[in-house]
Amino acid sequence: MIQETLVTTVNPQGEVHIAPMGVHIDGDWRIILPFRPSATLENLLLSKTAVINFCDDVRIFAGCLSGRRDWPLSPAERVAGFYLADSLAHAELQLVRVEDDELRPKLFCKVTHTVNHRPFQGYNRAQYAVLEAAILVSRLDMLPPAKIQAELDYLRIGLEKTAGEKEREAWAWLMDVIEKHQSGAQA
Amino acid sequence: MIQETLVTTVNPQGEVHIAPMGVHIDGDWRIILPFRPSATLENLLLSKTAVINFCDDVRIFAGCLSGRRDWPLSPAERVAGFYLADSLAHAELQLVRVEDDELRPKLFCKVTHTVNHRPFQGYNRAQYAVLEAAILVSRLDMLPPAKIQAELDYLRIGLEKTAGEKEREAWAWLMDVIEKHQSGAQA
Repeated sequence: MIQETLVTTVNPQGEVHIAPMGVHIDGDWRIILPFRPSATLENLLLSKTAVINFCDDVRIFAGCLSGRRDWPLSPAERVAGFYLADSLAHAELQLVRVEDDELRPKLFCKVTHTVNHRPFQGYNRAQYAVLEAAILVSRLDMLPPAKIQAELDYLRIGLEKTAGEKEREAWAWLMDVIEKHQSGAQA
Repeated sequence: MIQETLVTTVNPQGEVHIAPMGVHIDGDWRIILPFRPSATLENLLLSKTAVINFCDDVRIFAGCLSGRRDWPLSPAERVAGFYLADSLAHAELQLVRVEDDELRPKLFCKVTHTVNHRPFQGYNRAQYAVLEAAILVSRLDMLPPAKIQAELDYLRIGLEKTAGEKEREAWAWLMDVIEKHQSGAQA
């Protein structure tokens, strides 16, 4: 099972890196698979720790894909790391084992501590539309424009029916990236 | 903004009714819009209360659309109602105002109490795929089979990449309903 989350790690200079990542859940294992090169990979190998943030503000996902990486942070409770202050919950991880790979190493982590900050508010179709659009944005170079357009047209239906302000803002940021990419490709 | 939730209400005989519902969020208001006829509408008008359940077990959504309505319940804390024992969180509501309508009355409720049971585990694309498929199932009579098939083909991509056992089980229940409906339509 793969959960779409935001992973925060810290480099030796104390700078926090926020990355949207699909984390694999396998029993007690939380497996992070960053593509090389990756700040998350470097930070995790050095610090042996990471925080998984469970957020329902999809602007943070869209923000990381559109140059907006400055989100409020708070210090983690039991590891030398930080969590996103807007998280509904976060899990603090210890790196236990690495399966190396040229393309995509597997970082096997265990949860050492979980904090439940605020209640889950239920599913919102617009939030998923933003997430799916964010995944499209991360693959713009690999996907044909017609496929991107068809998927966006489908996702826009759920978005327009159910979005709040945050979801609309996040969607607009992603559409901006796609437009710039497409006009760049045509130029 | 619309959140996809499970609404639990109780009839005068003490029987609990579970219904997947899109609840409209407008500031402090939680607006429930059941189509007539509806057990949720009848129960809410009589008892003046309901519970909104924030669950990440999508089998309950798929179950309610495939004849599986028997899910573990626990008594609410401050209203005469019940919440789904598997909820990550639940909100207990008081009915304040009704805007009547022949097709779809608007029930304006206020949250009197919220309980945060367990931490949100992040987004799962398979859960979203199940939810979207559940919405398709609720509209089988209104949608052309080709449109249903095209949307299922798209949703299946995220499902197969990210599902756990619960999501696969929920998806199978919904596919079963769709197959039976389509073979019935052809017969």
